[in-house]
Amino acid sequence: MIPVGIVMGSDSDYSVMEDAVKTLKQFGIPIEVKVSSAHRTLERTIEWVRNFEEQGGKVIIAGAGLAAHLPGVVAGASSLPVIGIPIRSGALEGVDALYAIVQMPPGIPVATVGINNARNAALLAIEILAVADESLKEAVKVFRRKMAADVEAKDAALQEKLAQLGK
Amino acid sequence: MIPVGIVMGSDSDYSVMEDAVKTLKQFGIPIEVKVSSAHRTLERTIEWVRNFEEQGGKVIIAGAGLAAHLPGVVAGASSLPVIGIPIRSGALEGVDALYAIVQMPPGIPVATVGINNARNAALLAIEILAVADESLKEAVKVFRRKMAADVEAKDAALQEKLAQLGK
Amino acid sequence: MIPVGIVMGSDSDYSVMEDAVKTLKQFGIPIEVKVSSAHRTLERTIEWVRNFEEQGGKVIIAGAGLAAHLPGVVAGASSLPVIGIPIRSGALEGVDALYAIVQMPPGIPVATVGINNARNAALLAIEILAVADESLKEAVKVFRRKMAADVEAKDAALQEKLAQLGK
Amino acid sequence: MIPVGIVMGSDSDYSVMEDAVKTLKQFGIPIEVKVSSAHRTLERTIEWVRNFEEQGGKVIIAGAGLAAHLPGVVAGASSLPVIGIPIRSGALEGVDALYAIVQMPPGIPVATVGINNARNAALLAIEILAVADESLKEAVKVFRRKMAADVEAKDAALQEKLAQLGK
Amino acid sequence: MIPVGIVMGSDSDYSVMEDAVKTLKQFGIPIEVKVSSAHRTLERTIEWVRNFEEQGGKVIIAGAGLAAHLPGVVAGASSLPVIGIPIRSGALEGVDALYAIVQMPPGIPVATVGINNARNAALLAIEILAVADESLKEAVKVFRRKMAADVEAKDAALQEKLAQLGK
Amino acid sequence: MIPVGIVMGSDSDYSVMEDAVKTLKQFGIPIEVKVSSAHRTLERTIEWVRNFEEQGGKVIIAGAGLAAHLPGVVAGASSLPVIGIPIRSGALEGVDALYAIVQMPPGIPVATVGINNARNAALLAIEILAVADESLKEAVKVFRRKMAADVEAKDAALQEKLAQLGK
Amino acid sequence: MIPVGIVMGSDSDYSVMEDAVKTLKQFGIPIEVKVSSAHRTLERTIEWVRNFEEQGGKVIIAGAGLAAHLPGVVAGASSLPVIGIPIRSGALEGVDALYAIVQMPPGIPVATVGINNARNAALLAIEILAVADESLKEAVKVFRRKMAADVEAKDAALQEKLAQLGK
Amino acid sequence: MIPVGIVMGSDSDYSVMEDAVKTLKQFGIPIEVKVSSAHRTLERTIEWVRNFEEQGGKVIIAGAGLAAHLPGVVAGASSLPVIGIPIRSGALEGVDALYAIVQMPPGIPVATVGINNARNAALLAIEILAVADESLKEAVKVFRRKMAADVEAKDAALQEKLAQLGK
Repeated sequence: MIPVGIVMGSDSDYSVMEDAVKTLKQFGIPIEVKVSSAHRTLERTIEWVRNFEEQGGKVIIAGAGLAAHLPGVVAGASSLPVIGIPIRSGALEGVDALYAIVQMPPGIPVATVGINNARNAALLAIEILAVADESLKEAVKVFRRKMAADVEAKDAALQEKLAQLGK
Repeated sequence: MIPVGIVMGSDSDYSVMEDAVKTLKQFGIPIEVKVSSAHRTLERTIEWVRNFEEQGGKVIIAGAGLAAHLPGVVAGASSLPVIGIPIRSGALEGVDALYAIVQMPPGIPVATVGINNARNAALLAIEILAVADESLKEAVKVFRRKMAADVEAKDAALQEKLAQLGK
Repeated sequence: MIPVGIVMGSDSDYSVMEDAVKTLKQFGIPIEVKVSSAHRTLERTIEWVRNFEEQGGKVIIAGAGLAAHLPGVVAGASSLPVIGIPIRSGALEGVDALYAIVQMPPGIPVATVGINNARNAALLAIEILAVADESLKEAVKVFRRKMAADVEAKDAALQEKLAQLGK
Repeated sequence: MIPVGIVMGSDSDYSVMEDAVKTLKQFGIPIEVKVSSAHRTLERTIEWVRNFEEQGGKVIIAGAGLAAHLPGVVAGASSLPVIGIPIRSGALEGVDALYAIVQMPPGIPVATVGINNARNAALLAIEILAVADESLKEAVKVFRRKMAADVEAKDAALQEKLAQLGK
Repeated sequence: MIPVGIVMGSDSDYSVMEDAVKTLKQFGIPIEVKVSSAHRTLERTIEWVRNFEEQGGKVIIAGAGLAAHLPGVVAGASSLPVIGIPIRSGALEGVDALYAIVQMPPGIPVATVGINNARNAALLAIEILAVADESLKEAVKVFRRKMAADVEAKDAALQEKLAQLGK
Repeated sequence: MIPVGIVMGSDSDYSVMEDAVKTLKQFGIPIEVKVSSAHRTLERTIEWVRNFEEQGGKVIIAGAGLAAHLPGVVAGASSLPVIGIPIRSGALEGVDALYAIVQMPPGIPVATVGINNARNAALLAIEILAVADESLKEAVKVFRRKMAADVEAKDAALQEKLAQLGK
Repeated sequence: MIPVGIVMGSDSDYSVMEDAVKTLKQFGIPIEVKVSSAHRTLERTIEWVRNFEEQGGKVIIAGAGLAAHLPGVVAGASSLPVIGIPIRSGALEGVDALYAIVQMPPGIPVATVGINNARNAALLAIEILAVADESLKEAVKVFRRKMAADVEAKDAALQEKLAQLGK
Repeated sequence: MIPVGIVMGSDSDYSVMEDAVKTLKQFGIPIEVKVSSAHRTLERTIEWVRNFEEQGGKVIIAGAGLAAHLPGVVAGASSLPVIGIPIRSGALEGVDALYAIVQMPPGIPVATVGINNARNAALLAIEILAVADESLKEAVKVFRRKMAADVEAKDAALQEKLAQLGK
């Protein structure tokens, strides 16, 4: 059973989606990655979503740019939590994708993260899985403490740098 | 054979879409009207599009608000020209719907008209049908001349009103 | 143990948040509702989040308008999945709240839904709980089928109405 | 008889419009390309539109940036379907052109595609011609199947790449 | 000879344009008012502009909403200074009209005023005429002094009101 | 007597304003160029405007970026027609400057041109001067004919290029 | 000596600015209120600012709508801290005023608060005065505690209301 | 006692915040610089703010990008005047940060400066300190005169450059 599916409409989105892949691997979570389009391969996308859910998948992350329909179509085809990543591309720089993902009509939610923020999509998927997985929940807490320690380390480094400049 | 299909995601969109219905009736063009959602009844929507096209349909008009995926999904499921109407609703007043319809990725176009402009969607459908229908083309020209005459009549009425005010 | 917490910065947000309360009750899910501000009662908010998580809470829904910091602050204080609802208010009509919720920096995600879309926030919380609750997952599927049936019923009603107009 | 006319206000727009030229050639459709301005050569533009329509032209594609009036002016001078391409240029990055093309007043539609999306403009023109041309309709379906196959091939390539990384 | 022409695409714009009419009358400047559309009566509009200029017209004020092409078309058809008024209407509240008027390409300027600000359009026309009309220039200065006096009177009234509240 | 004054808040704006300088020189119109700030040298700016007007100046062009107050301040200090150029700079890319210039309150107009469009500002100044200068009006018409001829030449060049590609 | 001056460009802004007046009175701080325009009475505005500062004024609050130049002009004419309130009015709903106030060029800051948020402008002025006034600082802390208590009281009221509904 | 604290959520913001550091040093004002996050180290941030205020700090400058919560959180944790700097980063170019900082709810103000305008944040802090420090107030006036002199020098340089070009 693979808990997290990651789907994108075009392989050109992979450079952004890679952050999600890496973060999930970092937490040791098996993933399935798929290129499938909401427009060019609509029925194949629906079929993949159905199969993923039937085989015990838990969460789907979908990324798309421009008129970003993929996350909404995936959410319509599944009863799993779906996380949408608006991808920055074209003249509107991802605002189009953000609106096309977050403004879903009542009834079919998409959990939207920031533009190009594939890392947060992965972390959100992990937090969702951790709802029923104490050891994963512990891993999230460890990760949070590490992030906090990183901030403190950067603060210390800046203090030192400024102190040297001040001399 | 019904040449124009009109589809909307919710019956609450009908108050906007009605302008398209009326305009097409005014030109004597048979229509099929459908309520079907891109998210709540995705496969039924695809099925309707397929049937409409197989039975000889020529053009589809699709209206949607918010994260307006319906026109794009219809365009993905059909090789007919699809006209999209962004519907004004919610906090973003239709800008979300406009971006979600017009910014389709390369490969699957949607012919987008202005926000809530169902009348123009119908007129565009008629112009498309008129490409291969000389009598309809003539009807478009008559309609255009009538619009021009209306502008001139309104100009004349304003001149008269101002002349009376000037006395 | 109460699985879902709902927090808002001001009781004036309740008219929007009520949709989340009602939807969760409809699915029979116990909730805790809290008014607590990210600015006026910051430490009390952090304390509430900590307590809620320690007592076995699973998901938090946070709604806020304007410079909507509450969902992000809650997400920073907890390792649970946090769902953010941008509330429409003031001159920017909720665009400020949307940006202030969805654009969280990498590391601390907030699962953002559409502006004022408290219903979707509740449905997302339910989908998250359903990841580890088969009977709830079944309830989501029943709900989805009911929504689909509603769309079909509305379509039938519109067909009838149009048929009568056409006579 | 040339079915598709392509008009732009400045030869500097050609780098964007070229996608439309190439796509139409790919489908074997004769085109006429014209540089003519809505402001600097307004009457010559009208004259060209009139001639193109009289000689049996079927569809016009018009591209423009900034306060993009060319598509609307062409639509006002013709009863053919007119497709507008907002071109990205200047500080507003094409949002100005999008609004100036899509928000046509009721009565004179312009079928708008995404910013710089000349490829979709050409595909839309082809779909419109295909309404009365079965062999062209077949070509559109072949093109659609090819696009779908491309997505599947890219998916396969990504799977392979990820599998190798996983080793 | 009538120095100022005022043109609008629809008589429904008159409620906004009336401020320009009144302001010009207040300064005793003869005006010609015209309803003529950039799309529905394009050639009639060009003809009116040409006639107005040939008969000695000096400045044209053009107001339009939505994809507001009228000011630009008038500017293209004339070598007179053209003042454009973006009219607030539809879902985009006049931002579409503002961009469609102010972002004219290099070569054909339109002097744009604020959304719905027909009063400023008239005052700008007067300032332009005053460049070669000393008595009109004097009238502008008198008007400016009166505006300043009005501000001072309102300040005095507020001081008095606050003083009474303070008692 | 110098008819046109050009003022900017910072010498860094000169790279944009230079187009206005060049265009006015091209028409042989004497200009006065000034660096003076609406905030850092407010009273000196007012003094310069007063002097320029008293010495017979006819039109002022003012360019500014960010919270662009210079054109409005100049307009408040003078009864001449003032042309404002929003300069593209900073994160908002000139949208801030556009709004800060075009949205002047009723009573004090600024004739606004497009973002960075100093060429149009100069052409508008020339059209204003031409209202009372027949030979300048003739020069504008010659310029317009030349622009039209340029469009036609570019069209011819593109036709030739495409014809050669077609061989 | 009056520590806080409140200036607005038009008496119609008073309905918004009144919140600042009331909040400052609530803290017992003497104020001077002035109607004076950045455009219509520019020099009188500068004179008032100079006088206010010379007589020992400490902070100025300036509110304006549309192309809101008043706060920036006041800041240019004074070395006091100046607080700007963007006022919601017209088609752009205060976004124009926000940009025109907050985006001041480097060198002359304006401390900007939210659109129409006159209450926060007053509280900011009080916090500034409290930097050198321990009893005022104490009053701010009391006010903060009262706000926190209000949030808690509203939370308690909501709990009770929900408990009764739950019965 | 250190009067000004400068806090940022990430050391990557330092390249922008450095302008504030330099400007405050230029005026000889002691500062404390801190890297601390509103989300990753929320409680440590609150603790730092409390300590800074208790030890006699007077003003805090907080900079943040994206969903910029740091200034608001600092303002909620302190009764000092807090100055917020929206930092330009990501797809929304700082508009998200601007809205998330300036649109604070009534009760807790943040004195917002322009996007990336750390220099103005520092100058505003200095003006606030100068309210109770005559020698600092004098330094502000000297700085203002120097800025004015710089504008005049740049004007003189441009005049000379243009005069040489004119020869």
